[in-house]
Amino acid sequence: MAVNAVGRDIPSSIPGYKDDVVLFRGATKRLPKGNRYGKKNRTTFFTKTDKTLPNIKAAIRESGLQSGMTISFHHHLRNGDYVVNMVLDACAEMGIKDLVIFPTALFGVHKHLTKHIQKGVIRQIQGSVNGPIGQLASEGGMELPVVLRSHGGRPRAVISGDVKIDVAFIAAPTADKYGNLTGAYGQSACGSLGYAHTDADYAECVVAITDNLVEYPAPYIQIPQTQVDYVVQVDKIGDPAGIVSGTTRVTRDPMRLLIARYAAKLTESSPYFKEGISFQTGAGGISLAAAAYVRDAMRKKGIKGSFGLGGITSFFVDMLEEGLFRQLMDVQSFDLAAVESISRNAAHVEISADWYANPWNAGCMVNMLDTVVLGATEVDRDFNVNVNTESDGALLHGIGGHQDTASGAKLTIITTPLLRGRIPSVVDSVYTVTTPGEVVDAVVTEFGVAINPRRQDLMDAIKPSKDLPLVTIDELVEKAKKLAGDMAPIEHTDRIIGVIEYRDGSVIDVVRQIKKK
Amino acid sequence: MAVNAVGRDIPSSIPGYKDDVVLFRGATKRLPKGNRYGKKNRTTFFTKTDKTLPNIKAAIRESGLQSGMTISFHHHLRNGDYVVNMVLDACAEMGIKDLVIFPTALFGVHKHLTKHIQKGVIRQIQGSVNGPIGQLASEGGMELPVVLRSHGGRPRAVISGDVKIDVAFIAAPTADKYGNLTGAYGQSACGSLGYAHTDADYAECVVAITDNLVEYPAPYIQIPQTQVDYVVQVDKIGDPAGIVSGTTRVTRDPMRLLIARYAAKLTESSPYFKEGISFQTGAGGISLAAAAYVRDAMRKKGIKGSFGLGGITSFFVDMLEEGLFRQLMDVQSFDLAAVESISRNAAHVEISADWYANPWNAGCMVNMLDTVVLGATEVDRDFNVNVNTESDGALLHGIGGHQDTASGAKLTIITTPLLRGRIPSVVDSVYTVTTPGEVVDAVVTEFGVAINPRRQDLMDAIKPSKDLPLVTIDELVEKAKKLAGDMAPIEHTDRIIGVIEYRDGSVIDVVRQIKKK
Repeated sequence: MAVNAVGRDIPSSIPGYKDDVVLFRGATKRLPKGNRYGKKNRTTFFTKTDKTLPNIKAAIRESGLQSGMTISFHHHLRNGDYVVNMVLDACAEMGIKDLVIFPTALFGVHKHLTKHIQKGVIRQIQGSVNGPIGQLASEGGMELPVVLRSHGGRPRAVISGDVKIDVAFIAAPTADKYGNLTGAYGQSACGSLGYAHTDADYAECVVAITDNLVEYPAPYIQIPQTQVDYVVQVDKIGDPAGIVSGTTRVTRDPMRLLIARYAAKLTESSPYFKEGISFQTGAGGISLAAAAYVRDAMRKKGIKGSFGLGGITSFFVDMLEEGLFRQLMDVQSFDLAAVESISRNAAHVEISADWYANPWNAGCMVNMLDTVVLGATEVDRDFNVNVNTESDGALLHGIGGHQDTASGAKLTIITTPLLRGRIPSVVDSVYTVTTPGEVVDAVVTEFGVAINPRRQDLMDAIKPSKDLPLVTIDELVEKAKKLAGDMAPIEHTDRIIGVIEYRDGSVIDVVRQIKKK
Repeated sequence: MAVNAVGRDIPSSIPGYKDDVVLFRGATKRLPKGNRYGKKNRTTFFTKTDKTLPNIKAAIRESGLQSGMTISFHHHLRNGDYVVNMVLDACAEMGIKDLVIFPTALFGVHKHLTKHIQKGVIRQIQGSVNGPIGQLASEGGMELPVVLRSHGGRPRAVISGDVKIDVAFIAAPTADKYGNLTGAYGQSACGSLGYAHTDADYAECVVAITDNLVEYPAPYIQIPQTQVDYVVQVDKIGDPAGIVSGTTRVTRDPMRLLIARYAAKLTESSPYFKEGISFQTGAGGISLAAAAYVRDAMRKKGIKGSFGLGGITSFFVDMLEEGLFRQLMDVQSFDLAAVESISRNAAHVEISADWYANPWNAGCMVNMLDTVVLGATEVDRDFNVNVNTESDGALLHGIGGHQDTASGAKLTIITTPLLRGRIPSVVDSVYTVTTPGEVVDAVVTEFGVAINPRRQDLMDAIKPSKDLPLVTIDELVEKAKKLAGDMAPIEHTDRIIGVIEYRDGSVIDVVRQIKKK
């Protein structure tokens, strides 16, 4: 055991993860060594001009997939995804076992995997486990710990050789017979295929699974044929209702609107609110409302932004079309308007997760970000943020781009209600550290805005007002305690069921098995 | 010495090239071994959000470039390029010596490098040497042999680790301060940056040199910031008059028009002339005329093609806009119309040289090509083609995509006048083998069309006619001999001044020093 830079006791060896755990020592402390991974050289001298195979089992056979290997997936189909379940069902039927699955994220729909975990088809999950599989892991249902990485940390791990992908299965809303892929079209269109790029580039074998096989060459190619070995056509790769939301809505809850207004006001009062501003917000209600307020302020002051980043919604598409952004940099398209826009507007650019957020390349997008508005399940006196575990200690959420954007943006704003129900969100010490306080600049609640004391420059630049009430983080903690009373500590065992990597591959925290009530 | 599959004596060791030369054994015989190259891991934790440096010398210093290293360039600025000369001038002034330069091609404008070769700043050239530098090398003016690779063979060599690039200098018609690059805009716009992609991806350090620094992020990004370390702004990266031609013209010479008509007729008579046909032609007069005849036939029969490939001209842009192609796949934009089209039409797709032609990935574009019309300086009884050396044995031309498209296309047509002046183009044995006869399907001259006997299927499918007179290759050789008389053999020394790699990295031929007259 040793204590890392956010005060967590981390074992030097974690079975099923690493024998030589790298401790988190600070947001910019771990320097890369060695070389990028180079996959096996290959040739297509003997490839036919048609890479299609009749079904998933045939592709599994041709790929050479065997028990114990690592297979990857992207999560652009979100809770509408059929592909992960289909592939694991096929593996199970073929008697393949002990797989490490390496999805960018799992969702509620992947509860289906439970039986494959219980029967040993899946030995480990390295990827975000949103919902039921996270609950299962939290309760001790997996032999090896889940390993969580951020959207930038994951391509870093692959490119640097930390994780070797044997076979990448890429859900492709449109494909041609020679493996050109796009998410921009098809019955299961998802827009950007941002999370799949590194897998396509680095996996030893790449299998595309599509429900829209079109004439060669496919339009608006995102992943080229040079990276894809096999193509399988199936009836449906997903349920459109779960893939994209029809509309994204701004919150109407007055308390959340107040938080959004404070966050917007903080942005507008900062030195970064000027011509060429770039920003990212999530698709949540508070984030979208904050974006709407910032947009209104941009209109009022005649400010035009440079780029909107991240998961892209109709809201950002409208800003692009209004001229409030010159470009959208889209790693993930959240709604129908975003999907439609990416296929027709050259200023709406698909970017890979590597381009979006990998700290180990020549410079990712988050480095150029002015402001990001992020959420939290908890934030603490040191401004450390937890987005992974719920109030009962269950590991139900992924890291997403939280660590990456917080680290890159000049102004990182965490918005959260002070309490959720009767549970405080601003606490002495978060149960799980996802993002270290050193990269968080302000916490915004309905009771006011706490600026990180590390950002004296920001404090000096901001004038507090009725619209922007400044408080200290300690005041928020005390206020929350007063309203909620003392909370009982989360009961857990010593067994590690989750490892939270920082984006640089060091371990910022671990998650332990909860005690079932 | 040992004899390769096209009958050439190749030394087992060539000083300055390789100690263990790989012999060409046939177009699909060399299988890849080992892994792709992985460059050094890096991070941008400490990178400022501005990668610009004041001048080229500052970039050379920051890049760590030292004597003996390998530096690369692309040739999208063709005979208008200023960048190669500027960089080598700076290296010379800084006392850097013994460089291996690894351009995709050099042109007449690079005659300027002669002094740097003579003074030892440049030790070797690995890349096409069109014109004066080729002449210099042919006359023994370089210590080490020039190494020529095809458009597909070059990325193969880089990706597989045969050639390691220390610093890539990328001429960028437009760039932003964080290194996003595009060729689609700017005073020196060149359209596609296809040949630069592999260098950007695999070089240990990447320096962009631009004469159009724009607001971040640049529009229509082709090479992303994730790959670029430094950006230098200069007054001019090139002379637009040498970069793109204003218009590309079909030949008016009756003999050449006849050859074009035969080539077109052969295409139309082949089994590949049907809905979805793809094709590539060069920008030369015969090729363009042949393309025009094929286009007319497509219109007449109501056939719509799938894609046009290669160096793209206004001619292909018009076909795209007329609906005769669904997409253009553009590794190099030859004229203003192509540059303009790539920046506005999503169906006009920029592709890398890797995507275009690398035989060692999961499948390049040439594999999907139906017909290609190519030129030759010589072709012989075995259908071997020479595009590298002139009639005096001087190494004046690069391989381009000749080997690649010939190898990939279902129908490879070589067009050439039977004689050029008094010099036969169809001969007993070519002086230099660029492309092996086994991947050449037909030779078209003004005296008729010779189909390769290996393609009995094609002979069976073709009906000879007045518009498509079939002859044998031997008949063409004899006819040429009769017209031109016997030619004196080319006088050369034993010294090897050039190595011609096949696209798979084996040696298909060598070029020897000529005797000055």
